[in-house]
Amino acid sequence: MAEESNTTTSRREFLTMVGAAGGAAAMYQAMGMMGVAHASTYDGPIQLERAPEGTKVLVLGAGIAGMIAAMELRDAGYEIEVLEFRDVAGGRCWTMRAGDTYEELGGFTQTVDFAEGNYFNPGPWRVPYNHYGILDYCRRLGVELEPLIQINNHAYVHSVDAFDGKPVRYREINSDFRGHISDLLSKVTDQGALDEMLTEEDKENLLAGLRTFGALNDDNDYVSGNAASSRRGYERPPGGGVDGAPIANEILDLSTLLDSGLWSRLATSEALNGSMPIFQPKGGMDMIARAMADNLGDLVKYRKRVTQIRQDEDGVSVTYEDLENDGAEATTSADYCVCTIPFSILSQIDHDFSGPLTNVIQTMHYAASIKVGLEFNRRFWEEDEHIYGGTTYTDLPISQISYPSNDYLSDKPGVVLGAYSWGALAYQYSSIEPEDRVRRTVEWGSQIHPQMPDEFKAGVSVAWHRVPWTLGCYGIWQDKEAQYEDAVAMDRRIVCAGEHLSYLPAWMEGAVLSSLDAIRRLNETAITAAGE
Amino acid sequence: MAEESNTTTSRREFLTMVGAAGGAAAMYQAMGMMGVAHASTYDGPIQLERAPEGTKVLVLGAGIAGMIAAMELRDAGYEIEVLEFRDVAGGRCWTMRAGDTYEELGGFTQTVDFAEGNYFNPGPWRVPYNHYGILDYCRRLGVELEPLIQINNHAYVHSVDAFDGKPVRYREINSDFRGHISDLLSKVTDQGALDEMLTEEDKENLLAGLRTFGALNDDNDYVSGNAASSRRGYERPPGGGVDGAPIANEILDLSTLLDSGLWSRLATSEALNGSMPIFQPKGGMDMIARAMADNLGDLVKYRKRVTQIRQDEDGVSVTYEDLENDGAEATTSADYCVCTIPFSILSQIDHDFSGPLTNVIQTMHYAASIKVGLEFNRRFWEEDEHIYGGTTYTDLPISQISYPSNDYLSDKPGVVLGAYSWGALAYQYSSIEPEDRVRRTVEWGSQIHPQMPDEFKAGVSVAWHRVPWTLGCYGIWQDKEAQYEDAVAMDRRIVCAGEHLSYLPAWMEGAVLSSLDAIRRLNETAITAAGE
Repeated sequence: MAEESNTTTSRREFLTMVGAAGGAAAMYQAMGMMGVAHASTYDGPIQLERAPEGTKVLVLGAGIAGMIAAMELRDAGYEIEVLEFRDVAGGRCWTMRAGDTYEELGGFTQTVDFAEGNYFNPGPWRVPYNHYGILDYCRRLGVELEPLIQINNHAYVHSVDAFDGKPVRYREINSDFRGHISDLLSKVTDQGALDEMLTEEDKENLLAGLRTFGALNDDNDYVSGNAASSRRGYERPPGGGVDGAPIANEILDLSTLLDSGLWSRLATSEALNGSMPIFQPKGGMDMIARAMADNLGDLVKYRKRVTQIRQDEDGVSVTYEDLENDGAEATTSADYCVCTIPFSILSQIDHDFSGPLTNVIQTMHYAASIKVGLEFNRRFWEEDEHIYGGTTYTDLPISQISYPSNDYLSDKPGVVLGAYSWGALAYQYSSIEPEDRVRRTVEWGSQIHPQMPDEFKAGVSVAWHRVPWTLGCYGIWQDKEAQYEDAVAMDRRIVCAGEHLSYLPAWMEGAVLSSLDAIRRLNETAITAAGE
Repeated sequence: MAEESNTTTSRREFLTMVGAAGGAAAMYQAMGMMGVAHASTYDGPIQLERAPEGTKVLVLGAGIAGMIAAMELRDAGYEIEVLEFRDVAGGRCWTMRAGDTYEELGGFTQTVDFAEGNYFNPGPWRVPYNHYGILDYCRRLGVELEPLIQINNHAYVHSVDAFDGKPVRYREINSDFRGHISDLLSKVTDQGALDEMLTEEDKENLLAGLRTFGALNDDNDYVSGNAASSRRGYERPPGGGVDGAPIANEILDLSTLLDSGLWSRLATSEALNGSMPIFQPKGGMDMIARAMADNLGDLVKYRKRVTQIRQDEDGVSVTYEDLENDGAEATTSADYCVCTIPFSILSQIDHDFSGPLTNVIQTMHYAASIKVGLEFNRRFWEEDEHIYGGTTYTDLPISQISYPSNDYLSDKPGVVLGAYSWGALAYQYSSIEPEDRVRRTVEWGSQIHPQMPDEFKAGVSVAWHRVPWTLGCYGIWQDKEAQYEDAVAMDRRIVCAGEHLSYLPAWMEGAVLSSLDAIRRLNETAITAAGE
């Protein structure tokens, strides 16, 4: 409650509107033709033409792209075989739980020592509202979703060089930046600096807009007072009974704010992929992979390490080491193939892809990144600091701290994303042993949350450039504009798919959209070929 | 994933930071003394001194304020009796479910015809993160909370006078306003209009900040392109496979944006009480009231209509009609009394409060507001428009449409807050019969969601100025600054409490903080008196 209406109408206007309402739907429909800004290209479940009788498709890799290809092609009537290197499906859609062990490249092995029911998503951890494709598969497969809090006004922004290294609440920087730029723009507008760009009416609207946007006072100034404090916080917040009246807090002066550099953290939640609502599957991201694997059942053959890919006019033949059978060599064949093996791995496999595609496979490199999950005995960020979900941004090597968007207010141990860093930082992190990565993450985190060392329970780290089955986090192109068309095109009987072959790299949605486009073309090719 | 780190350090810096980390906690502690902007005055469970032997407190009203007073005073050793007019506890903390009937002032009676498990909160519906008090009672009473999506970038802002009455996605207006004001301020900064206010370094920081904040291009311009589209949406969003490359969308020109007036909707999520995270109890807001009522058990006497309040040196005596007993008159007494009856009702009761308090009771009026809950057979806002929770703002008489923050992607019917209006609009709304309110709400809503008429299943409306036990939504003061002290002060053996006696009016948190302050003073008074 407590929001005043900014709508007031006379009874006559009111009744006029009643009358007007009738034809609204029709009017709306007509105007539906006007240009709108779209959030996704996904337009509902794919409709594939029926497969030619007895056509088999071999799918390499049981990640999101591979399993979607397998499910949809199976439903279209294709015979399906999926080869997966690991003993579980999902690829980067991965969740670590109590008892799981993980051996990274180089031999470091970690065992997850979390409390029962707690988990950590080393890879994808968010499903933004505009990722219609993966959301639709969650709906169709019955994967339960819950909101993930991306931006928490009450979490921190932090820089070792600002405010003596003291973290500041996000809302203080956000409110003061909005307020100060609105104040500045109001002043120059009043001074006529914009007269050539704006009409008088524009200027009036702009000033009114800035007043709301920046919490300016009636003189269009952003100053310490209740208007500013109603956003950034108070010296004494509004209360009840005696002394209930609020006392405003001092705003940051513009130079201090600008000098802090913390304004660089204010845009994350504005990006299409970063704005609320964002979801997470209840219980861990791999609930999506599990639902797909269950749907495919024994069509997925696990622990098969592909060593050679060949194709000719008659079909595709793939040789693999069967890790289920002491690595014995085996060969399987099909009419067509969907290859979702990351190029970082495919580049090491003996294949006969065309020159242009081979060139992309050889030149694509994979991003380095690291995530460290920390479990704490007490949810001090909630109990002591009233932070429920969301993210703290810092220029410490940990880059950010994200708080769990589940089990709020519970007395169970909680798992925090204690570090999520990229590039050089990720390499430096992974150059030390997992126990040290965790220890240092706790040390750095303690600059923001001094409770960390005392409350620490367990930790685990995944450096993606050390993950044996991807050797990196996502595919980075040498020259995407020049290479893209060659890489996504069908190479005779084989088509490649995955996040690396999309413009939503590193997102599951990229894998979904890439896979759907790939099988649409594979299906057309197969039908045309059968028709000849 | 997919966020580039803006942190890069050399290995030396990296190791330096490792060393620096050690003393961080201590440093942080020291700096904890520095001024911070506070979000709440609540500082944990109230600690009351033990009650004087055999002291009884009578609590009038089993709403949030009354039940908190009863629980805490009971735990401090007071004998407690609570008189409640209705047959359920909670007051405005109220949830309507299938089968519930409600008769408003004037005789209109409605029966809720929702699907099993669906509900509507006519009163409070949000628990913001900064309402530490009510959140702590949820924790202590085991009330399960889930996030409520307040702002949804993908919901609409709408004006009958803008864009031919066509709704526009919130993110388009939000991105374009941020972009254009950042662009304007960058230009005048470059032109030197701010030279007197800013140093060269300030200007560089400001330009860098505006570039991020407004999604400006490298020339500090906000123009149609992928930078703007990555926030507002695309003509063709980033996809996968062939045609995966995005095509940018056209931004709104500044005059069109300003003329639309839709920028007036962009600040809601910036207010302390409106920014994420915000919660709702799973299953309905009255889960909080139920937990408190269960905790109090038979200390609460239902269906007792207070008719007279008297006090003298020996104690307080209250007369009431016992609606459980054909309205037979009865009287009960106690040493002290906490009166949480809304002043709109109290002003009609025979009491002997002091002159100044009586003056406040007589002059406080209660706000008019209306909420209309609409249940639809199909969750078209999710299925057709990809809106998961959040709020659409409009200048239609419905003022806003809020989408359910639960059962996302399910095929169950969903309940939408179809209208939430205040003041004149609320009176106009309530001047017509409930069925007409619902019908017109659907008509107006169809200007934004043409699917509404076809998908409509059931509706219910609550006009707060017609609610028999409050006669309004929240208390509005004639002259708060002058009257507040008199109203919150103990009047001999009676103290009043509730949202109306706080600076968080209309919020449950106001009732919590008012109640805690009131019983703290009542306790001191009782102990002092007993010591004499």
